[in-house]
Amino acid sequence: MTVRLGELAVRFGCQLRGDPQAAVESVATLEAAGPGSVSFLANARYRRFLRTTRATVVILEPRHAQECPTAALLADNPYALYARVATLLHPPPQAPAGVHPSSVVAAGCSIAASASIGPQAVIESDVRIGERVVVGPGCVVQSGVVLEDDVRLIASVTLGRGVRIGRRTLVHPGCVIGADGFGFANDAGSWIKVPQVGAVRIGNDVEIGANTTIDRGAIGDTVIEDDVKLDNQIQIGHNVRIGAHTAIAGCVGISGSTSIGQRCLIGGAVGIVGHLTIVDDVVITGLTMVSRSLTKPGVYSSALPAEEARLFRRNAARFRRLDEWYRRSTKGGSAQAPLEFEPSPDNDKDGDD
Amino acid sequence: MTVRLGELAVRFGCQLRGDPQAAVESVATLEAAGPGSVSFLANARYRRFLRTTRATVVILEPRHAQECPTAALLADNPYALYARVATLLHPPPQAPAGVHPSSVVAAGCSIAASASIGPQAVIESDVRIGERVVVGPGCVVQSGVVLEDDVRLIASVTLGRGVRIGRRTLVHPGCVIGADGFGFANDAGSWIKVPQVGAVRIGNDVEIGANTTIDRGAIGDTVIEDDVKLDNQIQIGHNVRIGAHTAIAGCVGISGSTSIGQRCLIGGAVGIVGHLTIVDDVVITGLTMVSRSLTKPGVYSSALPAEEARLFRRNAARFRRLDEWYRRSTKGGSAQAPLEFEPSPDNDKDGDD
Amino acid sequence: MTVRLGELAVRFGCQLRGDPQAAVESVATLEAAGPGSVSFLANARYRRFLRTTRATVVILEPRHAQECPTAALLADNPYALYARVATLLHPPPQAPAGVHPSSVVAAGCSIAASASIGPQAVIESDVRIGERVVVGPGCVVQSGVVLEDDVRLIASVTLGRGVRIGRRTLVHPGCVIGADGFGFANDAGSWIKVPQVGAVRIGNDVEIGANTTIDRGAIGDTVIEDDVKLDNQIQIGHNVRIGAHTAIAGCVGISGSTSIGQRCLIGGAVGIVGHLTIVDDVVITGLTMVSRSLTKPGVYSSALPAEEARLFRRNAARFRRLDEWYRRSTKGGSAQAPLEFEPSPDNDKDGDD
Repeated sequence: MTVRLGELAVRFGCQLRGDPQAAVESVATLEAAGPGSVSFLANARYRRFLRTTRATVVILEPRHAQECPTAALLADNPYALYARVATLLHPPPQAPAGVHPSSVVAAGCSIAASASIGPQAVIESDVRIGERVVVGPGCVVQSGVVLEDDVRLIASVTLGRGVRIGRRTLVHPGCVIGADGFGFANDAGSWIKVPQVGAVRIGNDVEIGANTTIDRGAIGDTVIEDDVKLDNQIQIGHNVRIGAHTAIAGCVGISGSTSIGQRCLIGGAVGIVGHLTIVDDVVITGLTMVSRSLTKPGVYSSALPAEEARLFRRNAARFRRLDEWYRRSTKGGSAQAPLEFEPSPDNDKDGDD
Repeated sequence: MTVRLGELAVRFGCQLRGDPQAAVESVATLEAAGPGSVSFLANARYRRFLRTTRATVVILEPRHAQECPTAALLADNPYALYARVATLLHPPPQAPAGVHPSSVVAAGCSIAASASIGPQAVIESDVRIGERVVVGPGCVVQSGVVLEDDVRLIASVTLGRGVRIGRRTLVHPGCVIGADGFGFANDAGSWIKVPQVGAVRIGNDVEIGANTTIDRGAIGDTVIEDDVKLDNQIQIGHNVRIGAHTAIAGCVGISGSTSIGQRCLIGGAVGIVGHLTIVDDVVITGLTMVSRSLTKPGVYSSALPAEEARLFRRNAARFRRLDEWYRRSTKGGSAQAPLEFEPSPDNDKDGDD
Repeated sequence: MTVRLGELAVRFGCQLRGDPQAAVESVATLEAAGPGSVSFLANARYRRFLRTTRATVVILEPRHAQECPTAALLADNPYALYARVATLLHPPPQAPAGVHPSSVVAAGCSIAASASIGPQAVIESDVRIGERVVVGPGCVVQSGVVLEDDVRLIASVTLGRGVRIGRRTLVHPGCVIGADGFGFANDAGSWIKVPQVGAVRIGNDVEIGANTTIDRGAIGDTVIEDDVKLDNQIQIGHNVRIGAHTAIAGCVGISGSTSIGQRCLIGGAVGIVGHLTIVDDVVITGLTMVSRSLTKPGVYSSALPAEEARLFRRNAARFRRLDEWYRRSTKGGSAQAPLEFEPSPDNDKDGDD
């Protein structure tokens, strides 16, 4: 798709410096851009590429306009404007309306005529599918699922019984939503399965990355609120609640019955134990272990950064005797160090809230 | 399904306080319960909801019976009794016996008449499937697999050649069991693949969470013993053995040739390096790195808990010079700190046991 | 398959001690080996099984030949020779050429006559598939994908639009390659999706483990170079580049736009933040967090090893006040500890390189 710069300025209500008749048709980085491309400057580390860029137009803050050798679209939030322009130039692929003959759809489902059910998909009984929904190739949608208008399951997604997904939510391949939570009662050394009778409710405008798993509730539902963004390979336990606008990076694990607030940012590979409450506006840096509720907004960390291994091992050896060293150096210290945390494997009794 | 309290007391051999004619039909938390529901008290943190619950009956220990405002079923292990009652009220959905016409079943398989092969499934050659087995929609079962009676593959499960799964074992969507282990020999800078000629043997009454992966053995089999419970997104390397009744929370990684004992409890996101032995009755808290064999039962940890980032960073900066500080403060210390651990990327030579 | 020892010695150019007419047909560990099997000694920890092995022949270094009670094939790199012999004895299973009638192949694809498209597969439009390629059961190959000669997708693999995979590359079940990267712009508290318009390019001789995910580039491609070996459940963000011959163990997460050099070895569950550069020949031990670029070859670590929990907690409690203790013990210390690292959740602005 080709768009003139003047049209972009009008459509997105921003100021243009340069020729309104010039046209762009694709996006590119400042460094790699050539004629016909739109680029942007949103991260200071790439400013060094601005002066030599060959982009047709660059989206940037007004304060950088002077440095721009080419046309510029001025925006207070260049990355957000870039996202809008890029969506205009690169719209998501369309799927044809209708049910592919190789798919298997149970009787009694309600499927909007504008919806697309791809090849090799399976739709079980009592499923309700809204307008313009896309169920991509190889998806399995179990009985009782509800997909609101404009939901897209890209491919190879599996939804368990009774999962409900809100409007415009996008689910990437390999996701499993609504599998049983991890709940077992120990009875004299053997495990008894605790039925997982809740479901999963997912809001509007959510995005869920590839191979992420969200378990159904033990009793009551697991809930993902509106505009939550989940990266790949995240594991969300039963009865977790994630507040609106929260974004979670890849490989995070959240144990059962934990509640996370709104507008949180959670870095990659963070682990959060069960039955905790994390308030709104918390930021957690990568690989942190959260073993207590976080009751104040702020930034939290617990992962040591990489060191040359020989040095790290020496320090780790000292860490191993830190308390002993402290007591010796203070001629006693406190007889009983406070127990700062008490994580525990979250494998039973998750069902009771 | 509706059941009278008197019937529950008789069936499960427990004492009832209250009207034996009262009936329940679903489960609920103490807090959310209404008439017709059974709840339970197994975790002290929910005791505050007991006095005001509107459940028809609560399962609890005799010592809490006095506080219960409604009928009570008394049990020494309320959570185990709850699991049994909930299973009675919410039995797993039934799958119809027979082979769905959209599935592809190779000639020469042995499939019990009571088994259910769902839509879009693939069963390759020489597969043996027992009574009442469920192979859900979209599953791929490669050649030579054996599924004993009452195995259930919920949906979208992939089983590699020759995998054997014991009775009543339940496998959730997205699991891959029997892919090649990670074995390569380095030859002058390039990698040569080491054929993974073992298989995977899984016992009875195992449960395997969504998107968990269990690799086939390099030589000899990877073994999961009876009544092991695995949560979602666990990675189990080739030739690992996991002892009976062990439960492992989500996102754990276990490298090749490690052996884990019976009745262990392993918290979320734990990492265990290869070629180790962990004895029976070990508990490992979340995010711990196990880099040496654990030869004594007990509880093990290694993850620091989350702190406010500014404080954590200051302490991490001190950690970075811990050995230097120690030596300075002790006028020398030991010249060579003991090397406390020696983890290494587990990427070759895994095949030899 | 059965092979005589003399034939092995000739074929692989190594010295044989023993009867060239003796034959082997399978591989086994030193401990479990019986007649007809070939074993090997490559790891000192298994040397104790050498003297009593019942293998027909053992592959080992010349310096161990004297201890070998049976025939021996001598090699400077026994594990590499073992890999070659094992591949000869246990070749990968063959898939029949042709398109299975249950698969769905769009018009306009180019599929070599020698390729195998398995049951229930989906091949969308404009896909090009080379000689002897195997697309296993249940795979989904989206439009514009290119699979060079001898690529094998074992089963249940999902490839997004425009993914390109080089010769002989092997992809295990559950992998998702080419899903959207995690890119969102925050606009007044709500997230705007940043279109992910790049693709994924994977080189020759790569192996990718089960349930691993590799995201498409935001702008420009995500690149995996030749002979890279990836274990299971790895997450690779958009625009990452991984250099040739690098091997990565399971559960690793690599955030967007990070570049990793050649011949690196990365242990399990390592987390690497975005926009970093890691040079060639770096080794990173398991569970390490890499939050800064690594500019020198060497071994890096940051995970503490497991301790008995009571001891660990006491030390963790001291760690919590390490800076305070340091300042007290040095009567002041530096007023402002250096900020040693600055990890941040990698959830926006990843698109600009």
